[in-house]
Amino acid sequence: MIENNYYSQENHGPYEVYNIGDFQLEDGGIIPECKLAYVTFGTLNEEKNNVIVIPTWYSGTTKIMETYIGEDRALNPNKYFIIMINQIGNGLSSSPHNSPEPISIANFPHVRISDDVRAQHQLITEKFGVEEIALVVGGSMGAQQTYEWAVRFPNMVKRAAPIAGTAKNTDHDFLYTDTLIEAITSDPGWNGGVYQSAGDVSAGLKRHAKIWAVMGLSTEFYKQEKWRLFDVDSCEEFISGFLQPFFEVMDPNDLLTMAWKWQRGDVSRMTGGNLEEALGRIKAKVFVMPIDEDMFFPPRDCEAEQKLIPNSELRVINSICGHFGLFAAEGKYYTDQIDKHLNDLLETNV
Amino acid sequence: MIENNYYSQENHGPYEVYNIGDFQLEDGGIIPECKLAYVTFGTLNEEKNNVIVIPTWYSGTTKIMETYIGEDRALNPNKYFIIMINQIGNGLSSSPHNSPEPISIANFPHVRISDDVRAQHQLITEKFGVEEIALVVGGSMGAQQTYEWAVRFPNMVKRAAPIAGTAKNTDHDFLYTDTLIEAITSDPGWNGGVYQSAGDVSAGLKRHAKIWAVMGLSTEFYKQEKWRLFDVDSCEEFISGFLQPFFEVMDPNDLLTMAWKWQRGDVSRMTGGNLEEALGRIKAKVFVMPIDEDMFFPPRDCEAEQKLIPNSELRVINSICGHFGLFAAEGKYYTDQIDKHLNDLLETNV
Repeated sequence: MIENNYYSQENHGPYEVYNIGDFQLEDGGIIPECKLAYVTFGTLNEEKNNVIVIPTWYSGTTKIMETYIGEDRALNPNKYFIIMINQIGNGLSSSPHNSPEPISIANFPHVRISDDVRAQHQLITEKFGVEEIALVVGGSMGAQQTYEWAVRFPNMVKRAAPIAGTAKNTDHDFLYTDTLIEAITSDPGWNGGVYQSAGDVSAGLKRHAKIWAVMGLSTEFYKQEKWRLFDVDSCEEFISGFLQPFFEVMDPNDLLTMAWKWQRGDVSRMTGGNLEEALGRIKAKVFVMPIDEDMFFPPRDCEAEQKLIPNSELRVINSICGHFGLFAAEGKYYTDQIDKHLNDLLETNV
Repeated sequence: MIENNYYSQENHGPYEVYNIGDFQLEDGGIIPECKLAYVTFGTLNEEKNNVIVIPTWYSGTTKIMETYIGEDRALNPNKYFIIMINQIGNGLSSSPHNSPEPISIANFPHVRISDDVRAQHQLITEKFGVEEIALVVGGSMGAQQTYEWAVRFPNMVKRAAPIAGTAKNTDHDFLYTDTLIEAITSDPGWNGGVYQSAGDVSAGLKRHAKIWAVMGLSTEFYKQEKWRLFDVDSCEEFISGFLQPFFEVMDPNDLLTMAWKWQRGDVSRMTGGNLEEALGRIKAKVFVMPIDEDMFFPPRDCEAEQKLIPNSELRVINSICGHFGLFAAEGKYYTDQIDKHLNDLLETNV
């Protein structure tokens, strides 16, 4: 275990922790006393049918997902019981940096998107007795989990909204994630995963941040100096004053656990590699919501999958911030689009 | 100096070398006895008005540019006197790895696109007595040099065809090139530029190649398994069997000299930062030729510049290979587009 105050309740809470016990992973290995950090908003109704599940994206926690909810929003806690769950490896749920031996730091086992969704299923059924989900919605790796939910539990999930993510990760996206991984593991301070603190891997984390700067935004974002949305005064400051500090405090093993998982997100693992069959299983009404300027989950990749989902629509989100549009730095311009589509989806009878 | 057989006459020749003498650089410093490696095809006519100049791109030499010429092509050596010139730092012309002290390897000075074009101007005027250029055409950094030619020597350049490149490098492109640079310089074998051979920096060069794999092609290239165009049988082999060996033999200091230059390509340096004024100076007929799937010189960036050039047209090239479309791996599908536009351009009276 490594002390890292970044992941504290002060920074990312308040959140609660649920122990799902020893958790068997798909690729082998066990997380003993596996813990899921989660947070809820609103109240579960008597019918237990007003549940919205929100998983988290790469490097993100449930804290940032709070941007997506509000009393005047589609994800309204006065109406819905919203359960946000931190993915395994994100630093709040069981993760390399916060796990004891024998799975501490470099010894943490490989985790898949499917493991997350099985663990989340255990949490919401055991803890809340929930058997029906009105909506699963998530961005990026949260979209991967959303697809996994819809395919794995087709009778349970009534609606799904994967934003800026795919059901089966692409070769291009795998390569992109490789460059992120290599930026970290090429740092001598990484030392095969055995370091004293994130600071030992600072140079690698900074390079990792710069690769995000290239692929995570858009060419137009920089041309129009939209980094101003992030309260910085120059492109340089966006890198050195925002993106690099943002990632530099995170635990490298935690990031790598998520990156490995991200690379292998694939619902067709449930159907022997047949993506059409896997997506054909979905019973939920699905809105596939790519971001128009996304450089690694481009709309055409998402649209190809949407066409394989029986009861689905393509709803493209416009954001000059590209993949980072997810951060909602554009404010109402972005959230109004999200809310419009989610309202339409939630109003759909299923 | 470092022996590196990759840059030999056997691999990249036959080429000739012209010594332009001690060459003063824009950013200070001198390349003593600066040598330009070049190759010509065809014959200079009596009027000396059938000259086509072709500069080179990042990591490329004149050898690859031979793909663009032929007796049945727009760039026809039976009709034109074609002068292909290797950019400074590319390993054939004066470069870190082939220069003696005091500018050997890590001590090589910064070179700008403007230096290249001034050096090339000296070569073609001194050596060939050429005062008029029918066409300058180049891809990527070759496009940067093409723009520099058209702005710096407006009365001399009659036609210009910048392919997949910009007149002023963008912030996004600068960041992208930064990630390439950092992939190399983060390798402990780089050692501040003081290494024994490219092999010492092999890990960094491999990472550099993988970042190219992400940004240099297109998402669709991978989805459609278009790596088959490069005579490989899998995505993995495209990386480890083609792209990595491709870059791994190159000299790291040479690549970094080109990368620094690439980042700072900007014709508006001639007009106090006023890009509109700089491009407005161009008297040549210009075809701006971006590649539709290019991830770092996207058509919209190129179109914005085209609109500032008085006598110009936008001619978009379609290539699923993205920026690597330049390699013409798609064969006639690609070269027919190039030839169509260049024929149109060469037939234009100016």
